[in-house]
Amino acid sequence: MKVIVAESAGFCFGVRRAVERAEGAAAEASTAVCLGPLIHNPQEVERLQELGLRPVEEAEVAAGETVVTRSHGTPADQLARLEARGPVVDTTCPFVKVCQQRAEKMASEGYAVIVVGDPGHPEAESIASFARRGRSAPEDAVRVVTDAEQLELGGKKAAVVAQTTAREENLARVVAACLPRFAEVRAFNTICDATARRQREARELARGADLVIVVGGRRSANTRRLVDICAEVRQTRWIEGAEELSPGWIEGCERVAVTAGASTPDRVLSAVVRRLEVLGGNVQDGE
Amino acid sequence: MKVIVAESAGFCFGVRRAVERAEGAAAEASTAVCLGPLIHNPQEVERLQELGLRPVEEAEVAAGETVVTRSHGTPADQLARLEARGPVVDTTCPFVKVCQQRAEKMASEGYAVIVVGDPGHPEAESIASFARRGRSAPEDAVRVVTDAEQLELGGKKAAVVAQTTAREENLARVVAACLPRFAEVRAFNTICDATARRQREARELARGADLVIVVGGRRSANTRRLVDICAEVRQTRWIEGAEELSPGWIEGCERVAVTAGASTPDRVLSAVVRRLEVLGGNVQDGE
Repeated sequence: MKVIVAESAGFCFGVRRAVERAEGAAAEASTAVCLGPLIHNPQEVERLQELGLRPVEEAEVAAGETVVTRSHGTPADQLARLEARGPVVDTTCPFVKVCQQRAEKMASEGYAVIVVGDPGHPEAESIASFARRGRSAPEDAVRVVTDAEQLELGGKKAAVVAQTTAREENLARVVAACLPRFAEVRAFNTICDATARRQREARELARGADLVIVVGGRRSANTRRLVDICAEVRQTRWIEGAEELSPGWIEGCERVAVTAGASTPDRVLSAVVRRLEVLGGNVQDGE
Repeated sequence: MKVIVAESAGFCFGVRRAVERAEGAAAEASTAVCLGPLIHNPQEVERLQELGLRPVEEAEVAAGETVVTRSHGTPADQLARLEARGPVVDTTCPFVKVCQQRAEKMASEGYAVIVVGDPGHPEAESIASFARRGRSAPEDAVRVVTDAEQLELGGKKAAVVAQTTAREENLARVVAACLPRFAEVRAFNTICDATARRQREARELARGADLVIVVGGRRSANTRRLVDICAEVRQTRWIEGAEELSPGWIEGCERVAVTAGASTPDRVLSAVVRRLEVLGGNVQDGE
């Protein structure tokens, strides 16, 4: 059985940067807390907690505590309150920040703002919150939609941005659906390159494999997307770590592909690969 | 045999306005000439010629002559030369003018400009000429494309406009194809409402008919589009006038749908309908 590990699997630039900044804050500040999970990976959040970085809600932040914000972005009003209050280490991914600024600027110029992403996901909601801050009539012309059929706005001009981990197909479909509804549609492809590359590679690997194993947190949107993409072409299993891997899955498989979400630490991915080796796998280059 | 005539068939606002202005120029000016065919309908161009409006090339314009420009738009540099030279009656459709201005503005702001339309068609080329005027490096980032596969540009930001008679599907496909190639894609749905409505109605009527007859000039892009749309769902015949209608076509037909391009005069459409009545047709409301 050959095991092919995706080159693009694992920590992206934004996640690596967030983890490093959080580690720095934990080391420097006497007490540092993190507003919600820094990244969508339970093992890594647990490791940071052991370094002293406690995940808290806004109301639980005590005076003098350094607040580390999550990599997915923080709602605009919450970030403003925190910054007015004390030291903040903002780990928002720079690519998310660009998208937030874009959304706010477009909203301030009178565009309806459509965020292609997951309603309820912190990144999508944070982007939408910046768009709302940019508007004079805040609520009515900002929406988070996953796909074209959820679109129910119409008007003169719309700006479309994407959660950095959205699927390119969904962005294209939402933009296409906007065209008959708005006279002007201004679309920003804010899907990050690393995400797009990881998705393309996953699709390719899935095509040449008998089974795909995707490693990543259950709440990780970009991991879910990898699972969706691979499941469209091949049998796919989603695990958070090596301990979930069942030997029965790989019986009769000649090629097993492994990829991992942007928030999956290397050590978690390595443990999965090691377990596959123990079960008889030979790790190959991506070809 | 029932004959259903599309409500939206025939002269659009822009064509009607161009014909009225041309008639006015022919009546007022001692000598008036038209730069190329005013609209893409040979019968109407012939009628205007009988009123004294001679179609000419730019080089043939004599001193003192009033020049009537075509409804599809004139290349930017040619229009400037003519206006510097003498009286001009510009019949450019106001919707085309909006598109020209949009293309020029976007080009001046550094956007690559993509015109979705027919390469070589006077409207598409006129829109592209205004985009080129707006650029400092003129040629390299302005393109006319019919569909997504012709796109070979890429870069930072693109503006997409459409020939007013383009198909909405093609605009959507070109915009979708731009998304992975440009960080920002600014699309203007410049397809005119009358065109979009006429295309939708034609598709509907074709579905409920045994045969579709499309009446319009052979060089009329919007007529060709109607033919393409109807031929996707039903047998379709393209004629310029009643004399081309063959009785054999309607043998065994229970429902015949008739539509006409934006440059088809009412009298030409009426003659086709009268001929169908002579051949046994009963004209019905569109239902």
